[in-house]
Amino acid sequence: MLMRWSCWGSALRAGCRHQEGIVTLQFLVERRDPGSAARTGRISTSHGLVDTPAFLPVGTGGTVKAMTPAELEDLGAGMILANAYHLYLRPGSRLIADLGGLHRFMSWNRPILTDSGGFQVLSLAKLRKVSEEGVLFQSHLDGSDHFISPERSIRIQEELGADIIMAFDECISYPVGFAEARAALERTLRWARRCREARARDDLALFGIVQGGCYPELRERGVRELVGIGFDGYAVGGLSVGETREMRGEVLDAVLPLLPGDRPRYLMGIGTPEDLVEGVIRGADLFDCVMPTRHARTGWLFTSTGRVVIKNTQYASDEDPLDAHCGCYTCRNFSRAYLRHLFVSGEILSARLNTIHNLSYYLGLMRGLRRAIEEGKLEAFRESFYAQREGVCH
Amino acid sequence: MLMRWSCWGSALRAGCRHQEGIVTLQFLVERRDPGSAARTGRISTSHGLVDTPAFLPVGTGGTVKAMTPAELEDLGAGMILANAYHLYLRPGSRLIADLGGLHRFMSWNRPILTDSGGFQVLSLAKLRKVSEEGVLFQSHLDGSDHFISPERSIRIQEELGADIIMAFDECISYPVGFAEARAALERTLRWARRCREARARDDLALFGIVQGGCYPELRERGVRELVGIGFDGYAVGGLSVGETREMRGEVLDAVLPLLPGDRPRYLMGIGTPEDLVEGVIRGADLFDCVMPTRHARTGWLFTSTGRVVIKNTQYASDEDPLDAHCGCYTCRNFSRAYLRHLFVSGEILSARLNTIHNLSYYLGLMRGLRRAIEEGKLEAFRESFYAQREGVCH
Repeated sequence: MLMRWSCWGSALRAGCRHQEGIVTLQFLVERRDPGSAARTGRISTSHGLVDTPAFLPVGTGGTVKAMTPAELEDLGAGMILANAYHLYLRPGSRLIADLGGLHRFMSWNRPILTDSGGFQVLSLAKLRKVSEEGVLFQSHLDGSDHFISPERSIRIQEELGADIIMAFDECISYPVGFAEARAALERTLRWARRCREARARDDLALFGIVQGGCYPELRERGVRELVGIGFDGYAVGGLSVGETREMRGEVLDAVLPLLPGDRPRYLMGIGTPEDLVEGVIRGADLFDCVMPTRHARTGWLFTSTGRVVIKNTQYASDEDPLDAHCGCYTCRNFSRAYLRHLFVSGEILSARLNTIHNLSYYLGLMRGLRRAIEEGKLEAFRESFYAQREGVCH
Repeated sequence: MLMRWSCWGSALRAGCRHQEGIVTLQFLVERRDPGSAARTGRISTSHGLVDTPAFLPVGTGGTVKAMTPAELEDLGAGMILANAYHLYLRPGSRLIADLGGLHRFMSWNRPILTDSGGFQVLSLAKLRKVSEEGVLFQSHLDGSDHFISPERSIRIQEELGADIIMAFDECISYPVGFAEARAALERTLRWARRCREARARDDLALFGIVQGGCYPELRERGVRELVGIGFDGYAVGGLSVGETREMRGEVLDAVLPLLPGDRPRYLMGIGTPEDLVEGVIRGADLFDCVMPTRHARTGWLFTSTGRVVIKNTQYASDEDPLDAHCGCYTCRNFSRAYLRHLFVSGEILSARLNTIHNLSYYLGLMRGLRRAIEEGKLEAFRESFYAQREGVCH
């Protein structure tokens, strides 16, 4: 067992509950919010540091859509997410390995996390057939047959060479009955063990994924067993699949307090700005979501006072910047009228400027949350965050 | 008559052949190539200087597709072209005027030239009906009826507020008989006079457009009469409409030597890298073309050794930069394999990186031509330009 690091900071040692398992990821909890489970921290990887809580822009196919790596760095993105499923299908993980790995391929020198493909096999692939061995599916690109097992997912992710890779899990849709959710959880746990054993590169951190649908008791069991196996970090998966906000809150309340305090906690596929604030308060450290980038391309823009649907006629002659409180390139240089014109005209620059702004908003929100925790002002930050939105249609 | 400037530089005074007319544009010829008609010069506008010969990236709808203004500046673009036709239809030239003009609207603080709409009415509009008064047409966007006359075109362009505006001309397709070409030329000349008289803002320079199809005698008559009216600069229009390269060369040989030497000469809609080299040698000062930007989006890339069609399988695992002799952001950071992956995946970043490179190539070519003229090495530059391409499929 390689123990590169266990617990940093004497004040935090008491909280350590390290389990058996590989620990290759350095994670230091720096400050805890006295009034909630929120904390700031720092993940250290061979591609640099990530300040947490952090939002990971989604770079599915080896590019955060519409953005250059330089722009992402300028916005302060610490880590991005890429999808093993997409990159395995196109251009191929073996090819990327031959070209020096994903960082070099996409010219991104900061940390990368890859998702294992479990969720994409559910949401994108055709004719999915799950067996104990793995998942047989047809590519959403060309219908070709593929098989991904836990071992294969780990190999694909090791070929890509991200700093953090994810266990291959069985995702289920919502709603689903208890028996089915339990069966999927149990398979996910067996697969988690196989991922753990299949791991060949000890320089990449491996995170386990808690499943269990919207059944708190299954979720709790998932946490216990995953922690028993031992991972570098723990993710909550199977959310944002159609459940209500209340159900999601229940799941998070059940899961997050049980996760080891000295390991990063990652809420997969979450979420809205409100979700980020609430997730941070519950103690989550990492988030990813397509929302800021995808919404940017459909003209749905996040601002400090609520959303702006830029195609609306009301902006046709609006000289104001998108968000007067935002200092991004878009808001410094362009009016809402111009952004609307670009959107209505289907210009590529529309997707670009909107994405810059939305990511700037999300990354700025995370900076604000980190600062609030450091300064012991998280509750005030939260109140101000909601007050700015009051009376605004979300 | 406002004569803000006539001829700079004592050495060049002898060559001045100023005609009657408004002259609001400062243009200084700096160096002449001893072996050809090529020259370097400098156009001075209220939005800054443009070194000539210059290539104008095309920003049809108020954006050079896929590029930010900051990126265009970084690439050294001195002036861009926008289309009165497109901006009149969407978002409306009156709206842009109300928002402070086109420079402010698109956040581009360097010079802009607007085309008058004559060519677009030919190439894009539906059900075009030309009368002596002007052109009745249906919008290519929504089929709505519109009428543009010479006076209306000037008003639209003055609302946009470009630094250089163009006379409204009657464009004809190719091939066309002599009588029809003559009739269109004569109308274009009558419209040129009307444009000249309709001009209300003397801070914008007005260029005349030489028509006459592929009939040198008509072209010569066009030049004579336009120069008689008097414009700040002269453009050769009606090319790149289907004529052969040889015919185009004949037209340029007939027209360019007749244009006043102290006024900018603008080849509209031209062209390939070879066209730029040959146009400069014939004495042209300004060029615009959608080729570098449009080809970028279809994966046709210009390099120092010829074209690269990036989707080709041969580049799938090619680790080299697109052009080893290019220092643009794309070539500094990405492999051909990555560019191919982005293109095949339909990623927005593909259009971006390709456009950055193609514009960098075009603008770099113009810089090379200017330097070669300044150093008296234009013939050697031309030989080297073609030698690099030898054996390469264009």
